[in-house]
Amino acid sequence: MGNKHDKKARSRELGIIIGRYPSGKHNAITDVKGVKVGQVTLRSGSGRLRPGRGPVRTGVTAIIPAPGDLWKSKLPAGCFVLNGNGEAMGLMWLAESGVLETPVAFTNTLSVGVVQKAIVDLMLGQHPTIGITDDTLTPVVMECDDSTLNDIRGQHVKAAHVRAALKAASPGPVTEGDVGAGTGMTTYEFKGGIGTASRVTPGGFTVGVLVNANHGKRHLLRINGAAVGAKIPELMPKERKDGSITVVLATDAPLDSRQLSRLARRAMLGVCRTGAIAANGSGDVCVAFSTANRIPHYPKDPVFKMTLLSDFHIDPVFEAAGDAAEEAVINSMLAAETVVGRDGNTVYALPHDRLKAVLAGKD
Amino acid sequence: MGNKHDKKARSRELGIIIGRYPSGKHNAITDVKGVKVGQVTLRSGSGRLRPGRGPVRTGVTAIIPAPGDLWKSKLPAGCFVLNGNGEAMGLMWLAESGVLETPVAFTNTLSVGVVQKAIVDLMLGQHPTIGITDDTLTPVVMECDDSTLNDIRGQHVKAAHVRAALKAASPGPVTEGDVGAGTGMTTYEFKGGIGTASRVTPGGFTVGVLVNANHGKRHLLRINGAAVGAKIPELMPKERKDGSITVVLATDAPLDSRQLSRLARRAMLGVCRTGAIAANGSGDVCVAFSTANRIPHYPKDPVFKMTLLSDFHIDPVFEAAGDAAEEAVINSMLAAETVVGRDGNTVYALPHDRLKAVLAGKD
Amino acid sequence: MGNKHDKKARSRELGIIIGRYPSGKHNAITDVKGVKVGQVTLRSGSGRLRPGRGPVRTGVTAIIPAPGDLWKSKLPAGCFVLNGNGEAMGLMWLAESGVLETPVAFTNTLSVGVVQKAIVDLMLGQHPTIGITDDTLTPVVMECDDSTLNDIRGQHVKAAHVRAALKAASPGPVTEGDVGAGTGMTTYEFKGGIGTASRVTPGGFTVGVLVNANHGKRHLLRINGAAVGAKIPELMPKERKDGSITVVLATDAPLDSRQLSRLARRAMLGVCRTGAIAANGSGDVCVAFSTANRIPHYPKDPVFKMTLLSDFHIDPVFEAAGDAAEEAVINSMLAAETVVGRDGNTVYALPHDRLKAVLAGKD
Amino acid sequence: MGNKHDKKARSRELGIIIGRYPSGKHNAITDVKGVKVGQVTLRSGSGRLRPGRGPVRTGVTAIIPAPGDLWKSKLPAGCFVLNGNGEAMGLMWLAESGVLETPVAFTNTLSVGVVQKAIVDLMLGQHPTIGITDDTLTPVVMECDDSTLNDIRGQHVKAAHVRAALKAASPGPVTEGDVGAGTGMTTYEFKGGIGTASRVTPGGFTVGVLVNANHGKRHLLRINGAAVGAKIPELMPKERKDGSITVVLATDAPLDSRQLSRLARRAMLGVCRTGAIAANGSGDVCVAFSTANRIPHYPKDPVFKMTLLSDFHIDPVFEAAGDAAEEAVINSMLAAETVVGRDGNTVYALPHDRLKAVLAGKD
Repeated sequence: MGNKHDKKARSRELGIIIGRYPSGKHNAITDVKGVKVGQVTLRSGSGRLRPGRGPVRTGVTAIIPAPGDLWKSKLPAGCFVLNGNGEAMGLMWLAESGVLETPVAFTNTLSVGVVQKAIVDLMLGQHPTIGITDDTLTPVVMECDDSTLNDIRGQHVKAAHVRAALKAASPGPVTEGDVGAGTGMTTYEFKGGIGTASRVTPGGFTVGVLVNANHGKRHLLRINGAAVGAKIPELMPKERKDGSITVVLATDAPLDSRQLSRLARRAMLGVCRTGAIAANGSGDVCVAFSTANRIPHYPKDPVFKMTLLSDFHIDPVFEAAGDAAEEAVINSMLAAETVVGRDGNTVYALPHDRLKAVLAGKD
Repeated sequence: MGNKHDKKARSRELGIIIGRYPSGKHNAITDVKGVKVGQVTLRSGSGRLRPGRGPVRTGVTAIIPAPGDLWKSKLPAGCFVLNGNGEAMGLMWLAESGVLETPVAFTNTLSVGVVQKAIVDLMLGQHPTIGITDDTLTPVVMECDDSTLNDIRGQHVKAAHVRAALKAASPGPVTEGDVGAGTGMTTYEFKGGIGTASRVTPGGFTVGVLVNANHGKRHLLRINGAAVGAKIPELMPKERKDGSITVVLATDAPLDSRQLSRLARRAMLGVCRTGAIAANGSGDVCVAFSTANRIPHYPKDPVFKMTLLSDFHIDPVFEAAGDAAEEAVINSMLAAETVVGRDGNTVYALPHDRLKAVLAGKD
Repeated sequence: MGNKHDKKARSRELGIIIGRYPSGKHNAITDVKGVKVGQVTLRSGSGRLRPGRGPVRTGVTAIIPAPGDLWKSKLPAGCFVLNGNGEAMGLMWLAESGVLETPVAFTNTLSVGVVQKAIVDLMLGQHPTIGITDDTLTPVVMECDDSTLNDIRGQHVKAAHVRAALKAASPGPVTEGDVGAGTGMTTYEFKGGIGTASRVTPGGFTVGVLVNANHGKRHLLRINGAAVGAKIPELMPKERKDGSITVVLATDAPLDSRQLSRLARRAMLGVCRTGAIAANGSGDVCVAFSTANRIPHYPKDPVFKMTLLSDFHIDPVFEAAGDAAEEAVINSMLAAETVVGRDGNTVYALPHDRLKAVLAGKD
Repeated sequence: MGNKHDKKARSRELGIIIGRYPSGKHNAITDVKGVKVGQVTLRSGSGRLRPGRGPVRTGVTAIIPAPGDLWKSKLPAGCFVLNGNGEAMGLMWLAESGVLETPVAFTNTLSVGVVQKAIVDLMLGQHPTIGITDDTLTPVVMECDDSTLNDIRGQHVKAAHVRAALKAASPGPVTEGDVGAGTGMTTYEFKGGIGTASRVTPGGFTVGVLVNANHGKRHLLRINGAAVGAKIPELMPKERKDGSITVVLATDAPLDSRQLSRLARRAMLGVCRTGAIAANGSGDVCVAFSTANRIPHYPKDPVFKMTLLSDFHIDPVFEAAGDAAEEAVINSMLAAETVVGRDGNTVYALPHDRLKAVLAGKD
């Protein structure tokens, strides 16, 4: 477990500046104060697929959205499903209630049940009243299909991995690329996976995005508008499915559920500027939350106060959401290393030198 | 496992005739040809709640929607979320794709992950290409919270129970009440759980509904319009949560996804005629499918033909859906026996004699 | 213009007590402080339909949701479309923005454009900046089809009628039945139209509902649960279409857009307890607003405060919404007189004596 | 009325090739067989705004989606609202019924009511049973706000203009830019308005898009990915609002309502690749229809057959939709001439020579 690359250049280090707003300190979702990310990478075996035995190229990426007891003091949240091919547990209640009250986890498609149960079990442990005098819970777990590289049928993610990812969650820089839930992901037919970025609006609000990118056709890939994919047709994987992209957006702007669902839409627009067309087989989902207000659980006082940003001042936050999401996808590809998975399937890293040449107009 | 009552009278045997259309042969969802229902009831222990040890009052109810290979030959499907408190796995893709391609299962809230994994594993076994060359799958699993009676934290539902429920699935009469996923359910503060009913429209289409009813406040209960709940204030449980109701509707009317989502709405209207107000803490969800067309998987021929019912002829199907759903809720209560669960919590059966007296205007 | 009946008994005066909460002073939407209703009734001509000349049986019902300048100081609002057969202007922006910033008007299907333009013109007059430096506006106008009685093709509603309805808007009792937009409406194949009711929750919140009821089949009509329609099969109109029902809900409970959309759903559930099945040809729409917070227009300060009711305390408001809506439908029928319209088409008043006999179990 | 420019170069003539699929014969929505477009341009007066008198810079663009009687023989249709600031009449029923049964019209925000009434009146004339024995109708009318250039408060669009636009509707090339409803529109702070494009998929399906583009901030403008807007900061209008973009998509691919709503989403993704962020004040709406099946009105036979494209073969149609929409936005700007409107407000044409220099990397 764990995944340490030699540090590869991120977008801005390569001169790829998406949008006009500055990024936060770490250019990561963790720039929103209180947000923590933890990842567990499962990588073992090689050669021919023997379902149940490997090779294993998968993992878990967990987001703890705010400090304190989320169950007792929830966050306003919204979501947007651009295309619904996949499983996204917990969204029905998130959309109805307008709150997020659990951590959020990314994993592979066939492991959502296990990951959800692991989070349920952890929260049962923390809250002895859940499922007795208190309501039950529905954690948010989203997935992408890593079966091109991973023995997905083997369901190698276990509860211990989820606990480890949550335990490892920390503020600060986020490891990107072929790590955590991103270990087996393919992005525009290059290796991708986990990516993140952030923006700070002129009004001082921070918007951070974390993606698990597993979508896209090569010829459609655009990097900051440049038709990079069409110009790098080589290094193609042998097999390809439509894939998916799951997105979490965090902000400290004081937004409610309706506004956060709007923001989730704009994050997906940013994703699509990299070339996503929301293919039939893609599960393109964004969950967005705000850390600026906390929503009480079973409060005695029936009313409470919220501070809200006027919609008339929301456009910079919209713009920031799209820009951060666009960059997060690119960062996922820039960070990832070539991965050889089951049956020798190889998904190649986007070669930085080729990219630089294309962006410089020399290719 | 298994649950055999002395046969108790169902709605029609008590003279409770909901709506103007006749029911099908079994007055059950299985009147739609090809639909099979299987249930496993978990009932053990008594006395004080010892989380993980019991008492156990829970189960699984599985619906196999049509014969043959659902994965290769899918069914048009739609859904409606009246209130989203709860987990309903598989709905995102069902809504996007307009198809149902797996069995549907009901269980308790904290067991959705396990039940989903069990169905995944079964389908992986049947389809060696899933998760390798083929896409992955997202089975439909819906839940209600049975924690008033059941050691829900103990998560006593295991994969073997899901397999047993699917194996037990059969056409013909459906056992109702405190059985399968309905074992621990509470309906209008009486014992309820699994209920079913069907209707045949003048056009010859059959509509069948199966509910797992775990919702409602006593004072709101209406049976065929009569304010029964207000007139039987006794036999109340000590504890009460908002609960939920999950609904599956089957029809042989040739409807597409859009129309089936409309039909799912009408089923929920029928449910609400029994007194449901879609309380904040309730997960009120309906999945509807049609057996009249099959949708091919990865077809070589890009186009296929469907036969569809014109919306201008759909009103009788709407009416049938509401009536069947309304009766299914009542049947769930009529069939259930009093259940004593964890901590001695007792949920009483609706007493038929009291009901008859109220309906006869003698109470 | 104007419509004064001999006062007919309303639900409560006939002993029809829907639900357990008390009504407000006037048992009307105007019990929510600040809400005003104004109506203009157009009734002229008789005999054979001569499109463009009459007979005329139509009108306008206008709701002014709060005092002061709605454009500059908006109301949180939500909506729910149970079935979308019809036109409901202004809902797209209401749903996106979560606010109501104009009066709401009911009229007939072919007059929505004229009524909308009349409100636009009035607001342009009040706000010289709209459409120059300020955004344009999209008033909320909803319709039902009164063509069974009215020369709907003649489009007899003019801007002056809209202005008169708004000018006539007042607090206090609301005239019900065949008045305003309800003049030509048919409810469960009896004469109906405008109806209203209110409820006060134990927490002290008032919920008021105003309906324009033009929906329903006779055999489905239920009054407080009793199958009244099936027992009064006589007095049927010659012609019948599916119709529609448009609903406005007002409350002083401090709710936001998400919560108000939830409330709008519960109002429609109450409507459906009277026998509505949301028929294919029915436009069943509810707009809900709260007067407890005002939302600033183009505020200099980007943030503002809202006081909100916790969802954990919302169930009584849900229950009140359904009960008030259910009663409003019944009140619309109780108030209406028999109307003879175009081509001698006659829609009969629900006979109070027959109703009383049925409810007393004597019929 | 009428708007003939010296022919300006369209995207492809400038070497701007969006996507990999060829365009149809006219690279216009009219490449979908049977689709006709008609426009009326209102352009009169100059100088200071005198509301009601001018200057007038507005119009109507009408799409007749298929030959024959749309009312009796409808088209499958879907829609997508990316952001709901604005009015889009007819969408509620289109979404519920899944059909389009009227022409579609674009106009300015304050003229939707008049335009809708004009179409209603025309259809009443063609169908003497509408509003008597037949249901009433809800035409599809969408708007953008042209108040920067136009005396929008003057509401200069009259029924005669709508009739003229429909009468002028023809197949073949479509005039683009500052014409019809696009006369007063602003696109990325350049002059834009009506634009169109089409694509033919490898499977032989044609997808055509028509936009009325009135959205976008200059710095966000991208043309085929190039950050053109940031590089041409000059020629800015004095005043600017968020604007909107309304989109109609036509295809001969055999798709149903669900699929067409999916397609409408992909069209909006293409729009957003030009730099749209769906700003708070923007009404971003797409209506999509298919000409491959006709849906019968009040059919005697309750069932009918449809031929449908499998979702597993839909990705090329998705890709085509996005590409055509992206190009349609650009075409709208390339075609438009500089327009001086009310109060001397000037919206400049995108200078082709500057654009060419930027695209060539010389700027």
